Amino acid sequence: MIHQIISPTLFLDKEKCLNNIRQMVDKARRHKKVFRPHFKTHRSAEVGSWFREFGVEKITVSSVSMAEHFANNGWRDILIAFPVNVREIEKIKQLAAKIKLYILIESVEVLDFLKKNPLPPCGFYLKIDCGYGRTGIAASDFLTIDEILLKAKSVPGFNFVGFLTHSGNTYTARSKDEIADLHYESIRFLQEIKKKFVLEYPDLLLSIGDTPSCSLMDNFEGIDEIRPGNFVFYDLMQAQLGTCQYADIALALACPVVAKHPARKEIVIYGGGIHLSKDFLLNENGLPYFGLVSTFDARGQWSNPLKNTYISRLSQEHGTVKCDPEIFDSINIGDLLAVLPIHSCLTASAMQNRFRIV
Amino acid sequence: MIHQIISPTLFLDKEKCLNNIRQMVDKARRHKKVFRPHFKTHRSAEVGSWFREFGVEKITVSSVSMAEHFANNGWRDILIAFPVNVREIEKIKQLAAKIKLYILIESVEVLDFLKKNPLPPCGFYLKIDCGYGRTGIAASDFLTIDEILLKAKSVPGFNFVGFLTHSGNTYTARSKDEIADLHYESIRFLQEIKKKFVLEYPDLLLSIGDTPSCSLMDNFEGIDEIRPGNFVFYDLMQAQLGTCQYADIALALACPVVAKHPARKEIVIYGGGIHLSKDFLLNENGLPYFGLVSTFDARGQWSNPLKNTYISRLSQEHGTVKCDPEIFDSINIGDLLAVLPIHSCLTASAMQNRFRIV
Repeated sequence: MIHQIISPTLFLDKEKCLNNIRQMVDKARRHKKVFRPHFKTHRSAEVGSWFREFGVEKITVSSVSMAEHFANNGWRDILIAFPVNVREIEKIKQLAAKIKLYILIESVEVLDFLKKNPLPPCGFYLKIDCGYGRTGIAASDFLTIDEILLKAKSVPGFNFVGFLTHSGNTYTARSKDEIADLHYESIRFLQEIKKKFVLEYPDLLLSIGDTPSCSLMDNFEGIDEIRPGNFVFYDLMQAQLGTCQYADIALALACPVVAKHPARKEIVIYGGGIHLSKDFLLNENGLPYFGLVSTFDARGQWSNPLKNTYISRLSQEHGTVKCDPEIFDSINIGDLLAVLPIHSCLTASAMQNRFRIV
Repeated sequence: MIHQIISPTLFLDKEKCLNNIRQMVDKARRHKKVFRPHFKTHRSAEVGSWFREFGVEKITVSSVSMAEHFANNGWRDILIAFPVNVREIEKIKQLAAKIKLYILIESVEVLDFLKKNPLPPCGFYLKIDCGYGRTGIAASDFLTIDEILLKAKSVPGFNFVGFLTHSGNTYTARSKDEIADLHYESIRFLQEIKKKFVLEYPDLLLSIGDTPSCSLMDNFEGIDEIRPGNFVFYDLMQAQLGTCQYADIALALACPVVAKHPARKEIVIYGGGIHLSKDFLLNENGLPYFGLVSTFDARGQWSNPLKNTYISRLSQEHGTVKCDPEIFDSINIGDLLAVLPIHSCLTASAMQNRFRIV
């Protein structure tokens, strides 16, 4: 199996992946939450089908093209968790006519546009910013929320589903406590908003979505729906946060060793920024690293990262592996190394979401 | 033209690109150097054909698959400027049988391998490290150079062409003077090596390759061949180095505006790390930015970057544009912005080297 691999290839450990899915499915069931996983991490029809075997029917995506992709693969209940791109209105119309489509609203401008360009019947979530500061209406801005909900009533066939947030700030948290603080703060914000609008919209949902909170927390009181995505593969960023163990990371990029430099204990692999992406983490000395390194067994499975061995530099096609001296001696030109990615979403995308499943 | 663009699309300004090519072709002719441009930046058969119109016949690539791609598009003289990946030996054999192929050697181990797995007649360059510290034999390590050249004689059909370096350290230089220092140092190193080996190999070439040196310098004495690549598109990294002007940058990512946040003067575009790559530069305050922003005219051409306006954050599909207050007011949801890339090689790759030529 391994001997057939001649160039950078993205390995997906199915057992680890199924285990990650199972744990999140179980958690959602245990807490009686709707589970609407985000499919942007894998963007794969096959990985999607593994979710279906666990009874998942509702999904989240982050682009119209991703929604089309999964609609073409039999998914019938899709939320596009990205601000409406009005330039894609025709495609959104086609999707809304075909499946149960949900979109995200965060501005009066887009509602005005949809009033003039009505969609087939379609649901919408209102995007709330609970502190991440990327998109959404500020959680305290009841005025704008009110204005949007009022205006939405005049858009025919447009149904308000609930309030949604993505606490992306948990990805840069430095401890479990900090993740917990952000998680509970988001929930408090959403509940405050719900309190104000629930009389008028008794069925409104509250939906949250980040992998750190969904993996680590065990209290989702008041929340109706969870939408984590990254957990399907996890990665080094999540391992550093304590959201997963190294053994849970389901992706590794197989990279041929092409050069060794004994004086500086560096190995050069065929595997660069175009394969891994340029996302990085900082080590204890404040220096960036672009992946950790492991070895494969004959079946294509990999062990935990090798000690003191990491990708110290990436150019377009080259990766430089800084090695522990003992490990350096055990690796030869022509070997295949397993690189655990910093950010699995971007590595999967760089590899065009094509996986060698092991 | 512009109104047809509904999602992130990579625009290539043909006139700018032709101008970049013309200038480098002229420079190589003026200095009587062999011009073997690196095609890794564009990886495009069409852009390649533009080079051919300028009489270019020899090219450089950085992977076996790129060599196959261009061989399939009529290129017959290709250097793979990447350490030999022995796992791809069968493909390398096929290429060497079909075209005039040159490969890179930097270790005895690979020569031993090629002795046991001989190629059809094929040329090789010896990769010299003049201080960049990524790959190659240290410029002062005459012993290893000697050993490799001696061993290469016993590999049938394997012809030594010359010494090659890539001064990638010019990309992180902070001034023209620093680039000049690195450039002349590399030339001195190569000439020292040549002095020692030219008696035995009277036809040996010296080959250099980085865009900063090739664009900025005007003295290539002793050098026989230049292999720059990035100059074909240039990018913000090169503009910051002073290697090009903003007006020379031939690529811009067209991104729809999907949200506006007046309180913080931020615009959200559909265009993220999977489109632009996560490469960044630091602004005067030491903060990272991931691109500069401009607007399109009706023909799809863009102006110089808007003042005080830059991509401050990138996630998978979202880009956050921090705006000058006046500019903020002039941009609306549904508009299309032109993002000038930090690193055109990686942006082109992220967009799968598919260009909308304008």
